[in-house]
Amino acid sequence: MPELKTMEYLKKIYKKRVNELQELRNNGVKVIGTFCIFVPDELIFAAGADRTILCGGKNETIPLAEQYLPRNICPLIKSSLGSIVNDGCSGIDSCAHFGLVDMIIAENTCDGKKKMYEILDDFIPTYVIDLPQRPDTDIALQYFLQELESLKTELEHFTGNEITSTKLLDRIKESNEIRKLLHQLYCERKRDPSPISGVDVLKIIQKQFFLSPTEFKHILKMVIEEIEHIQPEQESNTKPRVMIAGCPLSGGNTKVPKIIEERGGVIVCEESCTGTRSFWDLVDEDENKDPMLSLSQRYINIPCSCMSPNKKRLESVVDLAQEFNVDGVIYYTLQFCHGYNIEAYNVQKELKKAGIPMLSIETDYSDSDIEQLGVRIDAFLEMIS
Amino acid sequence: MPELKTMEYLKKIYKKRVNELQELRNNGVKVIGTFCIFVPDELIFAAGADRTILCGGKNETIPLAEQYLPRNICPLIKSSLGSIVNDGCSGIDSCAHFGLVDMIIAENTCDGKKKMYEILDDFIPTYVIDLPQRPDTDIALQYFLQELESLKTELEHFTGNEITSTKLLDRIKESNEIRKLLHQLYCERKRDPSPISGVDVLKIIQKQFFLSPTEFKHILKMVIEEIEHIQPEQESNTKPRVMIAGCPLSGGNTKVPKIIEERGGVIVCEESCTGTRSFWDLVDEDENKDPMLSLSQRYINIPCSCMSPNKKRLESVVDLAQEFNVDGVIYYTLQFCHGYNIEAYNVQKELKKAGIPMLSIETDYSDSDIEQLGVRIDAFLEMIS
Repeated sequence: MPELKTMEYLKKIYKKRVNELQELRNNGVKVIGTFCIFVPDELIFAAGADRTILCGGKNETIPLAEQYLPRNICPLIKSSLGSIVNDGCSGIDSCAHFGLVDMIIAENTCDGKKKMYEILDDFIPTYVIDLPQRPDTDIALQYFLQELESLKTELEHFTGNEITSTKLLDRIKESNEIRKLLHQLYCERKRDPSPISGVDVLKIIQKQFFLSPTEFKHILKMVIEEIEHIQPEQESNTKPRVMIAGCPLSGGNTKVPKIIEERGGVIVCEESCTGTRSFWDLVDEDENKDPMLSLSQRYINIPCSCMSPNKKRLESVVDLAQEFNVDGVIYYTLQFCHGYNIEAYNVQKELKKAGIPMLSIETDYSDSDIEQLGVRIDAFLEMIS
Repeated sequence: MPELKTMEYLKKIYKKRVNELQELRNNGVKVIGTFCIFVPDELIFAAGADRTILCGGKNETIPLAEQYLPRNICPLIKSSLGSIVNDGCSGIDSCAHFGLVDMIIAENTCDGKKKMYEILDDFIPTYVIDLPQRPDTDIALQYFLQELESLKTELEHFTGNEITSTKLLDRIKESNEIRKLLHQLYCERKRDPSPISGVDVLKIIQKQFFLSPTEFKHILKMVIEEIEHIQPEQESNTKPRVMIAGCPLSGGNTKVPKIIEERGGVIVCEESCTGTRSFWDLVDEDENKDPMLSLSQRYINIPCSCMSPNKKRLESVVDLAQEFNVDGVIYYTLQFCHGYNIEAYNVQKELKKAGIPMLSIETDYSDSDIEQLGVRIDAFLEMIS
């Protein structure tokens, strides 16, 4: 396929956004750093602040983090902390936007992140939302709602701006618009052959919580318009359709999707925080309902492996695999991510019942296993072709 | 030191207890399995049930669990599941009490256990308490209280017995008695030299949630009486006093304490679930207060690494080290336990401020690193002597 114009445009966007964030700060707007899709950015925007995601996908900053963290934990956590503690004297390049945040809003999801945030607080003020680990009881919902109420108060205090229901509802509508556009984009991928590569979609969705909502919407509209009328070459028809399921693929990390597509597969869906988990469910826009409750209901239902029981995820992996008509699922675990790693057992059981093959891989951000992964992925693609 | 009579007695206790549990079941009493000190056994006893801890400390059952679980997770989790899924045809020996439970009451603490419980439920009915991950807010306490109320209802339903406030308060008082006896035992260890080895204390405390409260109290009284008047030989005076801090040492696992004491140290305190965390704080016995609230307040305050922020643990490690007049702390992490592993950084920082040396080790249940650990522990003991 020829390179999409959207991807050309995307290459220039990083610097523009960094300048924008810098300018906002100069004008007194607070910039919040986040690490997880459980943090509702509707609340941040409703407080008149801006936000940028700080999940690291780069291998280079990991050694910096290993001064503070054990080696045998998830690369995403190490890469993120490494970018933040990087003082510039290390000779290692961190993305510029890591230095632009006034505070961090984090969340208790996995053991690794939860404990990393305690160290992070030494470097930058870090506010942590506690997250119940059950998605399916009313008392858990009420607890989460109260946690979000506390966050609202914190944000109002930090920005000096009141978060009114009207403001919040406006931001909910805007985030829903983005979610609907992402649904449209993913809908195009249901076509056979898919008009866009998985690597391209990933590069776009990695910008979801980095760019401003306006810019991100613009990009989504651009790419949808561009691919709507594309008729991919005939031979693409024979490519095995793959879904990635599992851990997020943060900005800077496209290792595994690249291997899959270079070896002849095409990724048509990602059951991931950098995929369906970030946009699949909309927030209720009912004006007669407390928007804080609507937010809580939507966010507590994100089927992350930190939730238990996680029936929704088990169902959604199978549903997505069928809806996107995939030939196989590549289950992607970041090294030492116990949640997704252990959950692979139950996911595989459900996929097996549905007759969908699955390959489980565990990797980090280094290049050392590229060849080995390639051999295993090759064999899997051949099997499902 | 000559072998204590209590330790002789302890050797015969396992079979007796297994017979007792079997007999209780034959008489219609429900036996509950637990995995964690966050599960209040006062509630189980108040429902007329009995309980036994199922945390595995044996290496042998790990391969059985690796059919279901990834290899690179904590040995305690794998050993426990392995003992439960062991069908007896494997030729591998599991402890008999694993087969005696009617249901399991588990808790959401770390990622590994939380996800293991989902698999466990296929083998034995498993009820999971959700645990807020913050110990210091009123809303977290209220959520935990509600979770314990749900557990109470579940236990009443399962056993057919009502849990009255009177019954609960009686069981709280009994558990407090045990806690006070454990304080007495630990108090003896403050003497210099300590009249009892750390390995002996560990073997006793590993039975805390396995034996009936009556039997466990009996053993505690026996050992206290026995050591109260012991005057250890003079040369013991020169042994470096060590505290172990970190992960639990479950029944069947005495590897590291043995190495420490064989190499010439003496363990005088364990900041651990098989140590101070299990008994340090008492439950409020105030009869004018809802005992469910008293339970919640005590249990949510257990300074496990799953809690964040974990100020209480950081303070208590230093306090204990000073109170027991230790020469150094050996920080003990079970492999891939991210919580305790990452928290080592902040613990070390606090100990450093207090001028207390710390050695950090990470190990599993296998024998393969005994020599290597020995060399490191030797060097540490020499340094702190």
